[in-house]
Amino acid sequence: MDWVNDANVALLTDLYELTMAASYHRHGMNETATFDLFVRSLPERRSFLVACGLEDALSYLETFRFDEAATAYLRSLELFGDDFLEYLLGMRFTGEVWAMAEGETAFAGEPLLRVTAPRIEAQLVETFLLNCVSFQTLIASKAARVTLACQGRPYADFSARRDHGADAALRAARAAYVGGAASTSNVLAGAVYGIPVSGTMAHSYVQSFAREEDAFRTYAEDFPGRTTLLIDTYDTVRGARRAVAAASRLSTSGGAIQAVRLDSGDLVGLALKVRAVLDEAGLQIVSIFASGDLDEYRISDILAAGAPVDAFGVGTQLGTSADAPALSAVYKLVQDERGPRIKLSTGKVTLPGVKQVYRASDGACDTHDTVALVGEEGIEGRPLLTQVMSGGRRTRPAPPLDDLRTRRETAVARLPGRLQLLHAQVLPYEVRWSPGLQALLAEARGREG
Amino acid sequence: MDWVNDANVALLTDLYELTMAASYHRHGMNETATFDLFVRSLPERRSFLVACGLEDALSYLETFRFDEAATAYLRSLELFGDDFLEYLLGMRFTGEVWAMAEGETAFAGEPLLRVTAPRIEAQLVETFLLNCVSFQTLIASKAARVTLACQGRPYADFSARRDHGADAALRAARAAYVGGAASTSNVLAGAVYGIPVSGTMAHSYVQSFAREEDAFRTYAEDFPGRTTLLIDTYDTVRGARRAVAAASRLSTSGGAIQAVRLDSGDLVGLALKVRAVLDEAGLQIVSIFASGDLDEYRISDILAAGAPVDAFGVGTQLGTSADAPALSAVYKLVQDERGPRIKLSTGKVTLPGVKQVYRASDGACDTHDTVALVGEEGIEGRPLLTQVMSGGRRTRPAPPLDDLRTRRETAVARLPGRLQLLHAQVLPYEVRWSPGLQALLAEARGREG
Repeated sequence: MDWVNDANVALLTDLYELTMAASYHRHGMNETATFDLFVRSLPERRSFLVACGLEDALSYLETFRFDEAATAYLRSLELFGDDFLEYLLGMRFTGEVWAMAEGETAFAGEPLLRVTAPRIEAQLVETFLLNCVSFQTLIASKAARVTLACQGRPYADFSARRDHGADAALRAARAAYVGGAASTSNVLAGAVYGIPVSGTMAHSYVQSFAREEDAFRTYAEDFPGRTTLLIDTYDTVRGARRAVAAASRLSTSGGAIQAVRLDSGDLVGLALKVRAVLDEAGLQIVSIFASGDLDEYRISDILAAGAPVDAFGVGTQLGTSADAPALSAVYKLVQDERGPRIKLSTGKVTLPGVKQVYRASDGACDTHDTVALVGEEGIEGRPLLTQVMSGGRRTRPAPPLDDLRTRRETAVARLPGRLQLLHAQVLPYEVRWSPGLQALLAEARGREG
Repeated sequence: MDWVNDANVALLTDLYELTMAASYHRHGMNETATFDLFVRSLPERRSFLVACGLEDALSYLETFRFDEAATAYLRSLELFGDDFLEYLLGMRFTGEVWAMAEGETAFAGEPLLRVTAPRIEAQLVETFLLNCVSFQTLIASKAARVTLACQGRPYADFSARRDHGADAALRAARAAYVGGAASTSNVLAGAVYGIPVSGTMAHSYVQSFAREEDAFRTYAEDFPGRTTLLIDTYDTVRGARRAVAAASRLSTSGGAIQAVRLDSGDLVGLALKVRAVLDEAGLQIVSIFASGDLDEYRISDILAAGAPVDAFGVGTQLGTSADAPALSAVYKLVQDERGPRIKLSTGKVTLPGVKQVYRASDGACDTHDTVALVGEEGIEGRPLLTQVMSGGRRTRPAPPLDDLRTRRETAVARLPGRLQLLHAQVLPYEVRWSPGLQALLAEARGREG
């Protein structure tokens, strides 16, 4: 199959990046330029983002190159001269990158990534950087909301089958883990990232036996201590009784089956009935796992209704961020050798200059961020952008995934309480512009156009 | 970077596929079984689907294998015995596949893919097949709607930067082309699939010159005959005048610039003003290209308002199918050595048996489909499922992409007129169940549970 890989990913760019680059190359316009990658505005149902995707972005930049196959294709387009194609063959990314750490909370208008490099290099990487950072940030942000809804209960990423392609399934599992999922059903994500993998059984397994109870007993015997029985293939409550029967045949302690899974119907009513069936049989130790088109809203409702659900599987809605399936992420020129750059298109103003983001707190809780110019003095709070790449190389090794998960947990807990609610907020998190930035913006507005 | 590829994609499966497979293996349950891949119900805003993703699914099945690295990881989970891991190393997909052709229209409840194979093989490929076929079908279906909205005008896929990961960007470009996009901005998709690539320029290019007009003239000189100028960086109408000025400096014929692009603001009003500016300068030949968070609804509105837009760029909304970012695609056991299988979970009935889909027409227009049992006589219409794989090998070479595009065009044109409208239909396309299928369903309902 045709896959994206290190050898061809440089071509995963919009054609205009290459035509613009060719023009810059022809005219010797390859001075240093700075681009910001940021989200213009939060989706209606988001109060915060969780930054994610940085490590993949850095890996891409470190290995970025056009090979002979790539330039042969580009030559066939009859748009590019030999000089430029030769240049591409030798080109590497040599710039520097400052970024928000993965797992950090972030807001609209704040650079998630700041790239400073020769203009051509900085331009050519736009498409991939946007794709990579915005998708993983999208999913980590959604996952953080599901985490809030679960109120301490674990949930598993079950999204692989509905994610947008193979790469999405892999990255979504990682981003969901950063965002707070306890595990993933995606075995490849387990192998690649070391994320805990989990799973239950499918309806087809139950259907593959003459009797439901045979399926239950067989599975429990095959995976002792790691058995979650799917009990809704025919009738959920009857399935619960059969799970009890299977457990009683296997062990007098009840430890042979760990959980039962509900995947359809009225999950609240069924969870109550199933809990009663299990408890009556002395199987208090068996937990209830719920799945079936769940998202943070449904989980919140299920728990608010008092359903005795102990853990969740969340698939489609998580892996596609279905209520907000894209972020308005952009990558904008903010400074070049002539100074700060600005764009005034209707409704799409870009903040000029090389910037830092500071986060202020009142101790336990973050209160506001300030977008400021680099070097501007007296801005309250801690800087959020740190240098992660210099001369085209990472300045530090990739942090362990669990550190990113912990950072997200800390950052979300420090959000003002109203932002930890699931529904859209009247009062968003405050992001200020520093005096220096405001002055520059006013000056640039006057100068440009 | 860690990528999905032929060597590791077998692990891109849900853990339960492997635990179930191990259980089947231990108990010698590897008789032939048949699974249907179908969409349970259409999203609210869809009247039809365009089947897509089959060729990637077949490539996956042809090369499906677990290597030593995969089994080493699986061993580390302490869930699987050596016997099973040995079996996995030698396992290949040996089954047969019947499928709807890519580009064909399809509806809820109709198998897009029917897999018949030893139970373990058929089970292990579930996750990837669902991911692959449902995502590409999602995007081809969305693209077909955009095609309808454009009323014959070309549009380009501009989605790469907002698609869900790298693989999504590549496949979305292909699916969008099948669905009717004229081109893609994604250069890798051009290289891999031979899809025409197109592009304009970014705001950063305009900002990289001291004056907007310098940017326009430079680009037009560098790409004569292939220049679309982005005119909204500062002020759109002023940008149009500068485009005229650049064109007049370049050539008296006006042929130096092919189009101008609007990417923000009131596209209807601006297109009218820009058209007037161009026409006044004698540049009737210069077309207007519009982009900026467009989808089929906005395009339809823009054209209904009489905006003189000649072509569109469609990005985020297309590549994420934002108004319906997932399909309820499932993969269900429908028959095994004991006969037809059924699942009765609340609201999720699966049609049992090995099935064919027939499409009836009144000549120019398709009227209804019938889902029937294979071998059932007297069903009206032409069969839509054809055999595409036998013994784990394709039964025919992959058809040219342009054939799939043509098939979609024909199939959409044959839809009843009400289904070619963009808004949800009161009266959906009729999908009947054959007498044989109805009898089997009744019998199976009585027998199971």
